[in-house]
Amino acid sequence: MSEIIRTDVVIIGAGPVGLFAVFELGLYDLKCHLIDILDRPGGQCAELYPEKPIYDIPAWPEISGQALVDRLMEQIKPFSPQFHLNRMVTKLERQADGSFRVETDEGEIFETKVVVIAAGGGSFQPKRPPVPGIEAYEGTSVFYSVRRMEAFRDQDVMIVGGGDSALDWALNLQPVVRTLTLVHRRAEFRAAPDSVKKMFELVDSGGIRFELGQVTGLKGENGSLAGVTLKSSDGEKELPATRMLPFFGLTMKLGPVADWGLNLHENLIPVDTEKFETSEPGIFAIGDINWYPGKLKLILSGFHEAALMTQAAKRIVNPGERIVFQYTTSSTSLQKKLGVQ
Amino acid sequence: MSEIIRTDVVIIGAGPVGLFAVFELGLYDLKCHLIDILDRPGGQCAELYPEKPIYDIPAWPEISGQALVDRLMEQIKPFSPQFHLNRMVTKLERQADGSFRVETDEGEIFETKVVVIAAGGGSFQPKRPPVPGIEAYEGTSVFYSVRRMEAFRDQDVMIVGGGDSALDWALNLQPVVRTLTLVHRRAEFRAAPDSVKKMFELVDSGGIRFELGQVTGLKGENGSLAGVTLKSSDGEKELPATRMLPFFGLTMKLGPVADWGLNLHENLIPVDTEKFETSEPGIFAIGDINWYPGKLKLILSGFHEAALMTQAAKRIVNPGERIVFQYTTSSTSLQKKLGVQ
Repeated sequence: MSEIIRTDVVIIGAGPVGLFAVFELGLYDLKCHLIDILDRPGGQCAELYPEKPIYDIPAWPEISGQALVDRLMEQIKPFSPQFHLNRMVTKLERQADGSFRVETDEGEIFETKVVVIAAGGGSFQPKRPPVPGIEAYEGTSVFYSVRRMEAFRDQDVMIVGGGDSALDWALNLQPVVRTLTLVHRRAEFRAAPDSVKKMFELVDSGGIRFELGQVTGLKGENGSLAGVTLKSSDGEKELPATRMLPFFGLTMKLGPVADWGLNLHENLIPVDTEKFETSEPGIFAIGDINWYPGKLKLILSGFHEAALMTQAAKRIVNPGERIVFQYTTSSTSLQKKLGVQ
Repeated sequence: MSEIIRTDVVIIGAGPVGLFAVFELGLYDLKCHLIDILDRPGGQCAELYPEKPIYDIPAWPEISGQALVDRLMEQIKPFSPQFHLNRMVTKLERQADGSFRVETDEGEIFETKVVVIAAGGGSFQPKRPPVPGIEAYEGTSVFYSVRRMEAFRDQDVMIVGGGDSALDWALNLQPVVRTLTLVHRRAEFRAAPDSVKKMFELVDSGGIRFELGQVTGLKGENGSLAGVTLKSSDGEKELPATRMLPFFGLTMKLGPVADWGLNLHENLIPVDTEKFETSEPGIFAIGDINWYPGKLKLILSGFHEAALMTQAAKRIVNPGERIVFQYTTSSTSLQKKLGVQ
């Protein structure tokens, strides 16, 4: 069993609102661990629209999703948050002393006094391609993300998709795999032109096999993939494959949040507007996942919610301690924490 | 009588929260006029700490008060807000049709469907120096700001103070006045070194008379100033002066807000957390001046409040119209309003 990680706050979701919560909690000396299903911080902003401009972040007439995340990461650096990425929270339960035990699908166990759910529209999960029986291979031969490249060494790898993830991983994995086949239903790619160019160069030199078509069936047994059936305008054919990586984009799912005993309201978590606390004391919900009268799913509202939640979290972590509300502009104590004094 | 200015929204207070309200209201096509007692937009940020860094504006690891205001001014530019500066709201009353009539001490009259009070800690008002009987000269010979330099032409002007305002106006008014005397109780100045240098050059060349000391009395009649008594370490002396400009900093006063029939709570205006509306329907209060359970006087909270208030303001200005909530990242209609499409 893993060593137990003890902390003040576990934040579920490392999107912009989860990140800014680290800042507000940090000003009050609360230490945070963040868990996110994606492989990097930033949530929807970094995953779905890293290069799209956002116009309604106050004092940023225009900022891209990725730039917003980068600036938030810089802002919370003084508080050294710990990130646990590529993880899903599988269990959240209250312990006898009132604190919480949080477990992930990678086996980590956290003991924390406060849980902050900042999971946006729920967790982003990869879209499963419509191939009959694919579930039987998931986690053994079929993967929706690359956690360790070593797991693909000397395998016959088939990557399916035509976006940046498909192209990036085709280029990155090609040197370590036995064979690499890229399958896409069109000859056009929605990816960086430079990646597309590099991929076609590898196709020309024999490093990558490109197939136009759609995967319609899988062959193998006991979760061990042996080959796939590919359907194209020429008809069907069989191709060898021991690993498959479909990159069909992400879909939003509430995921296990729905099972945590919180009162839900149309798949959202109702909170009060004083502390942004859920029906479970000590569990807070901020950002797009919460609901209260007037709620707007705006990033800037999540920032405000993070600030007010922090006051209540501090009272739970350090009961009886007097909370002094100070301004970063004038408080040398806060400025020391930020490393600017 | 002035021409009546008809508008959707009058915002009282042009600090950062009042400015961002223009942005949120603008996205919903609501036109705003802003009224502020100060002579430029930015409120406390621009007036009290223009050069001090702020560390808790989301995605701005560090930004000065003035830079924050500058970025907000850039962000609201597409909505062409109308500023009425150096004004104080003297009257706010509901009309028969439910709209509001707003009057200022400069005689402007606004008719508006919505009033947003974003007045921070109330209005910043100049500190009155402790000189007996000074009230009798205020508005005729004693002024706390310069609205029109012409009002000082060919006068014997005495400026009192050692900060940027005192120095800037000494330098700016010196060419138009008959005589200019600068009085400060110390030989050190809390002003831009360049201004101090220029001032001393004018003292050397005879353009400015500098006196070390404190004003203890005023002479004159019917509000018409003739001279002042100056106390210094050498004793007391009389100096000629027909106009006096004391720059002793600003103090926060709730001002006439207190008389507008709103329910106040410790000099704050209670609002709900769905619309941030006051006890008077159609009058909203956002930013540091409002109160609700959990309230924190943070700029970022005012930004959130501006966004939620806007939904309710829209319903008042355009009753019955369907409100479509859209994102600036994806809505070409919003992007057209912002001038980026």
